[in-house]
Amino acid sequence: MSEMINQLMNHRSIRTFTDDRLSTEQVRTLVEAAQMASTSSYLQAYSIMGVTDVEKKKALKEISGQNYVEENGHLFVFVADFYRHKRMSDQLGVSIEDYLGATESFLVGTVDATLAAQNLAVAAESMALGICYIGSLRNDMQRVIDILDLPAHVYPLFGMVVGYPADSGSQKERLPFEHIYHENGYDSSHYDEEIQAYDKRIMQYYQERTDGKRADKWSEQVIGMLSGKTRLDVDEVVKNQGFLKQ
Amino acid sequence: MSEMINQLMNHRSIRTFTDDRLSTEQVRTLVEAAQMASTSSYLQAYSIMGVTDVEKKKALKEISGQNYVEENGHLFVFVADFYRHKRMSDQLGVSIEDYLGATESFLVGTVDATLAAQNLAVAAESMALGICYIGSLRNDMQRVIDILDLPAHVYPLFGMVVGYPADSGSQKERLPFEHIYHENGYDSSHYDEEIQAYDKRIMQYYQERTDGKRADKWSEQVIGMLSGKTRLDVDEVVKNQGFLKQ
Repeated sequence: MSEMINQLMNHRSIRTFTDDRLSTEQVRTLVEAAQMASTSSYLQAYSIMGVTDVEKKKALKEISGQNYVEENGHLFVFVADFYRHKRMSDQLGVSIEDYLGATESFLVGTVDATLAAQNLAVAAESMALGICYIGSLRNDMQRVIDILDLPAHVYPLFGMVVGYPADSGSQKERLPFEHIYHENGYDSSHYDEEIQAYDKRIMQYYQERTDGKRADKWSEQVIGMLSGKTRLDVDEVVKNQGFLKQ
Repeated sequence: MSEMINQLMNHRSIRTFTDDRLSTEQVRTLVEAAQMASTSSYLQAYSIMGVTDVEKKKALKEISGQNYVEENGHLFVFVADFYRHKRMSDQLGVSIEDYLGATESFLVGTVDATLAAQNLAVAAESMALGICYIGSLRNDMQRVIDILDLPAHVYPLFGMVVGYPADSGSQKERLPFEHIYHENGYDSSHYDEEIQAYDKRIMQYYQERTDGKRADKWSEQVIGMLSGKTRLDVDEVVKNQGFLKQ
């Protein structure tokens, strides 16, 4: 197994960091590695925000509810970005309004920002840094837009904290290979038994990690969360930014 | 610079492959590496389709218009997938309809599938394989759904061809670091001059690569494409699959 595969297989989210900050050179290397990810039709429809301002970090921590959004080596926020395309189209006198309002552009911006983010994550881990994605910034997407002065045609997707790990994290077992990978056609005939067995293993993991205090099945955990109707306001914010007009 | 950073910085899309197929073990390693990417709230809201059936590959090639969709070492299609969550919620008698119809779930499924895909791409390149993303499968998303028998609450995002490179590809220069990375607030005051200089460099790249036959500026190339109103049907297909009901 290559060193790279080994690194990918050993990924775990890190949520506590030493006080050491990333250097300007480290940040630049990470962003440049992110930029080399594939991009849809060469559009490069994303930007990467770095947040070092203490007050802004504090405000973002309040949105996410996670201390590590304030306490880390560096905080990134990944945004889907068609602002520069809109600006160029205005200058060229060519309308791209139909595209900007279409579901396709929302999909492309989300994909482009995410490809860059995962390259950055992999690059960081190869430098012995730890990372954690911060989806909870979408608890108040409009406030993130205000804090980071994001213009129209830009929306924030998630943050990522990067830093020197202060603990070793722990790895959560994924769904079985056969559950995720389907050849030539989607086959769910084996889903029920796989999820039952997976639920048992995850329950055991939580029991061991919490001295028996917690015993969630994966299925109950995720369905309980999704039934909570979280983040219904994402729709309105994304539309206000100029997307999903179809 | 670490070997990993070096690999990321050397990424280029590969579009011609030798006749060698990936082994079952290679496919499994790639998918398992993909699975270890971060996932939103542990949802694992994606699946990975492998396509080896000759007729299906041919049909997918026709949708994309790219020969390498048929001629490669292995063809993957990445799909956002809430089918298993819907199934579990039905079994538990808990409704997640509001979430499934919300923009948030469309965003999460797209992010989860893309995180996994980029891990797979990085893993493949570490095994001396070449890759190319196939966004052009969205030229006819409904037909991809039919070919791969995708159920409700699943939609295809893009394909990825993987294989043994038959050429060395070429790397396209990205936008300047300062254009993509913004600290503490979005600043577009320097955009016009950066894009003018970038346009000149890209024009030169195309001229050199085509013996002067092609001389696209980046800005004109991408805005020309986006003004063509591509893939307006993605919206209807995604909605038919149970998403974007808000």
